[in-house]
Amino acid sequence: MNEVFMREAIAMAVENVQSGRGGPFAALVVRGDEIVGRGTNRVTTTNDPTAHAEVVAIREACRQLQAFHISGCDLYTTCEPCPMCFGAVYWAHIDRIFFAATRDDAENAGFIDGEIYEELCRPPETRRIDMVPLLREEGGRPFDAWHAHQGRIEY
Amino acid sequence: MNEVFMREAIAMAVENVQSGRGGPFAALVVRGDEIVGRGTNRVTTTNDPTAHAEVVAIREACRQLQAFHISGCDLYTTCEPCPMCFGAVYWAHIDRIFFAATRDDAENAGFIDGEIYEELCRPPETRRIDMVPLLREEGGRPFDAWHAHQGRIEY
Repeated sequence: MNEVFMREAIAMAVENVQSGRGGPFAALVVRGDEIVGRGTNRVTTTNDPTAHAEVVAIREACRQLQAFHISGCDLYTTCEPCPMCFGAVYWAHIDRIFFAATRDDAENAGFIDGEIYEELCRPPETRRIDMVPLLREEGGRPFDAWHAHQGRIEY
Repeated sequence: MNEVFMREAIAMAVENVQSGRGGPFAALVVRGDEIVGRGTNRVTTTNDPTAHAEVVAIREACRQLQAFHISGCDLYTTCEPCPMCFGAVYWAHIDRIFFAATRDDAENAGFIDGEIYEELCRPPETRRIDMVPLLREEGGRPFDAWHAHQGRIEY
């Protein structure tokens, strides 16, 4: 079944490009043998830089399953996830990532996935985008409120 | 003005917790002296693991500015962005990140930001979540379609 799901994702990604809806990426969230979320890249047609295929598929799966943690689900993505989508997988508690193309394939096609991976693993003060610390002490207040809040729901 | 924006974000994050709407985080996207996007964490109340403050603020700013690249804008966030949000900043072409608390502060408050950073910088085969390569050759087809598509919009 693994290859069936991946072939479906690849076909969705090709169709997404040919129909002019966005970039060459698609993803499925699968639980058992059931597809519970589908996504294709919609960055340019929805003016949403976070509308990567994996994020779209995870958001749909969570809506359908009415949960913010979806352990028991796998992600099938036509390309190794970028750091944004990789983070989304961890926050969603997804079990496994199946991927076809790699970050190098994406880079060869003109996408900056590899650069973001490199930036992220560098010390903050050496990155291309400035990261400026500000009011760290006051920045502890939301966490104080969190600890004091009886009804907090962890995630 | 920098501190004014950050203090506003910190107040939003405290209010977000106390009102039971989500986690202890808030973010603003600012262009010049104007706030063009606001976000607070809404993961648990919207069943959306990608609804981190920064992602919510960036999506709102892009909607308002009708653009998927928003260079000229800065992000003010009450805590150093997690890898998902860090990636979103790069994809959105934001200029600078101002942050108050750090990933260690978040970790001390029970959040897995630090772990995701570590996982991401490890070789894929050593990660906690399995990454399974599948059909890499066929995974090149969406990129072939992309190169062949005359109307492609890069991002």
